[in-house]
Amino acid sequence: MPRLPAVPHLETALKGPLLAIEKKLLAQKSIIESWFRCQFRSTPAPFYASVDLRNAGFKLAPVDTNLFPAGFNNLHADLRPLAINAVQHGIERFCPLTDGVLIIPENHTRNLYYLENLCTLASLISDAGYAVRIASLNPDIQEPTAIELPSGRTLTLEPIIRHENRVGVSDFFPCAVLLNNDLSSGIPAILADIEQVLLPPTQLGWHHRTKSAHFTHYREVAQEFADLIDCDPWFFDPLFTTCDGIDFQQGQGIDQLINQCELLLNDIQTAYNAHDINQKPYLIVKADAGTYGMGVMSVLDPQQLAALNKNARKKMSSGKEGLTSERVIIQEGVYTFETVSDAVAEPVVYMIDHAVVGGFYRVHTGKNATDNLNAVGMHFEPLAFADACIQPDARLNPDAAPNRFYAYGVVARLALVAAARELAQNDLP
Amino acid sequence: MPRLPAVPHLETALKGPLLAIEKKLLAQKSIIESWFRCQFRSTPAPFYASVDLRNAGFKLAPVDTNLFPAGFNNLHADLRPLAINAVQHGIERFCPLTDGVLIIPENHTRNLYYLENLCTLASLISDAGYAVRIASLNPDIQEPTAIELPSGRTLTLEPIIRHENRVGVSDFFPCAVLLNNDLSSGIPAILADIEQVLLPPTQLGWHHRTKSAHFTHYREVAQEFADLIDCDPWFFDPLFTTCDGIDFQQGQGIDQLINQCELLLNDIQTAYNAHDINQKPYLIVKADAGTYGMGVMSVLDPQQLAALNKNARKKMSSGKEGLTSERVIIQEGVYTFETVSDAVAEPVVYMIDHAVVGGFYRVHTGKNATDNLNAVGMHFEPLAFADACIQPDARLNPDAAPNRFYAYGVVARLALVAAARELAQNDLP
Repeated sequence: MPRLPAVPHLETALKGPLLAIEKKLLAQKSIIESWFRCQFRSTPAPFYASVDLRNAGFKLAPVDTNLFPAGFNNLHADLRPLAINAVQHGIERFCPLTDGVLIIPENHTRNLYYLENLCTLASLISDAGYAVRIASLNPDIQEPTAIELPSGRTLTLEPIIRHENRVGVSDFFPCAVLLNNDLSSGIPAILADIEQVLLPPTQLGWHHRTKSAHFTHYREVAQEFADLIDCDPWFFDPLFTTCDGIDFQQGQGIDQLINQCELLLNDIQTAYNAHDINQKPYLIVKADAGTYGMGVMSVLDPQQLAALNKNARKKMSSGKEGLTSERVIIQEGVYTFETVSDAVAEPVVYMIDHAVVGGFYRVHTGKNATDNLNAVGMHFEPLAFADACIQPDARLNPDAAPNRFYAYGVVARLALVAAARELAQNDLP
Repeated sequence: MPRLPAVPHLETALKGPLLAIEKKLLAQKSIIESWFRCQFRSTPAPFYASVDLRNAGFKLAPVDTNLFPAGFNNLHADLRPLAINAVQHGIERFCPLTDGVLIIPENHTRNLYYLENLCTLASLISDAGYAVRIASLNPDIQEPTAIELPSGRTLTLEPIIRHENRVGVSDFFPCAVLLNNDLSSGIPAILADIEQVLLPPTQLGWHHRTKSAHFTHYREVAQEFADLIDCDPWFFDPLFTTCDGIDFQQGQGIDQLINQCELLLNDIQTAYNAHDINQKPYLIVKADAGTYGMGVMSVLDPQQLAALNKNARKKMSSGKEGLTSERVIIQEGVYTFETVSDAVAEPVVYMIDHAVVGGFYRVHTGKNATDNLNAVGMHFEPLAFADACIQPDARLNPDAAPNRFYAYGVVARLALVAAARELAQNDLP
């Protein structure tokens, strides 16, 4: 791939309704930042998060909020000090007296992209001034295992052990345990009732968390924010509904799913008409609990669901680690109208503590604007944001890079506020 | 001046005793960072500070700690997000509910270097998400006054007003007031007993603060730190003494001063002998309370003090804003053995909250290694640190740029711990 430009081209730049919204964001920056401070005081943010955004020019919305983010290796090296400082503040907030951090990663031992992420995450914590070691839940890791990475770095995985009510590796049992494993299969027995501070708490794992609960909170947050800056929340908020009792493999519940899809498409069309949007509505159907883009489908015509072939049914049945999806979320598809050399580009924003610490674009040459970019077997080129998303420049036009990045940082933080409310709800007895 | 290299040449690199110290700093990074966390938990850092360092290769020490730092415009633009985040944390710590910050600057209205600093400081606070306006104490500012800066930016100064127990400008009386004025002439009446949060408190102004009190705290901090990493504190700690009752104009107290200088030079020579340093000791004599490099003198031979000409006597008498210096601090001179194209280079490290947010070198072509670089009428070229001082790289040699910058960040934070202890002492009833 040739050298990428710093910022993807936005087809609708400077003419879509988002231009007016971006102007509002710039003009009301102090009010917005004050509102975020107030939100994170009353409901503290989870330790970290990444948010997948879609920018259609007429709508800028989060489509997925990951509370066990990978991909830290894709952030711009120039922004690492920002992440290091945010790590310091996050650890001080949750676990002020710790001197070390144990990371519990996903079980992948051959996914080098993931391991590069893990290595970067560990070095951010080390640079923040904490001892850091990686405790693997993977039964294949029976002794300290050094893995050479394509970047030239070496990552050492160690077998997790439990000693009374603490987990650790060999002689290292620090107060803080950072989960970089989304717990799709539930809470491993070794983590049950440990006395250490788990970041984030295991209740935020995908065995327990649902996308629909997140987007229900998000809807309220978007409404409150829209009231604050006096605009229509639709610009930030993807419509969605859920559907239970689906078994794609056995063909159960498909009629009801088609029915729900028809209804949501009608709602989207009504909103498109109201906002004078001349695009064809589409949907994303995915497991309500789960991650990694498995079991994700774009739906332009609900009747396609009646005629899924064996492969497609199988794909929709296999959530991560072999889970079947019984409940799906049906989400308004948000077009990606940002392109780099004709390839679609989806922004991903990273936050640690309540600070935006950077982001990157997933630039994917083989897909079109309606596809889910985070799909099985996808290959993307990361294009790091050169900008920290916190320095808008009112002298530039609303779509200039620092201002577009600021808008991304604002919408991503709206999703972070929603995640903070999930966290607060989980803390209730 | 031709394009400057990223890092000045250190004449003694890789052979001086500091090499061993830098190795210790790298090897014990987690322990050091843990120690700093503990220090700033028990004695919180002042809102911001800059520390002038000298690097002699055989000694790396702070020579001045400014709690009303100027020069923010000299920091590297790439590191601004770090400063913005630190501002957010600092303001949240001292004044969590404020939505605005009033800056009270120095009275200079024609010093464009200072005004560029002020403009950068204001924009850091604005980018941190706070409304910000500048309230001038200068009686010449009777109405909002816009000043065009060489950088193309415009800075607006407004006359400070008081309304009951709050200060502000026109309709802006926020909870947080940031002092960028070192209060050399005392606390202005308009600031007396205000109910707003003053950052830092007026007691840290130079009318009240003394360099000797700072370096007394610093000595203790350096000793504790040296115990932590098991080394000789002398490597970080400039010897000093004080001398009262000096009137250079009238020639009073000069004999006593010469005597004190002789004694301190002897002490330095003894330390040089003990550390096998083959350099001629020298001293810096300056007002114990004061700033801006006025009344600062290098002393190689104390007898020169007996023969000061009229100009030199006048210079030593005129502290900032016409104060006479009655008490001086006599400080071990620390050679500057860092050079850029044969010009000496003095590092200055900036901190906001307890985070190092960057720094720059004062590169001065017309002075030699023993001169005070921050002298009246001096002209320097700022050379911004390209590095945030928080990412040492153990794979590189101890004097590689990220590692040398890390050492600067450590020593500057030792001075910040000393300043935090001054602050804690001032908070006592």
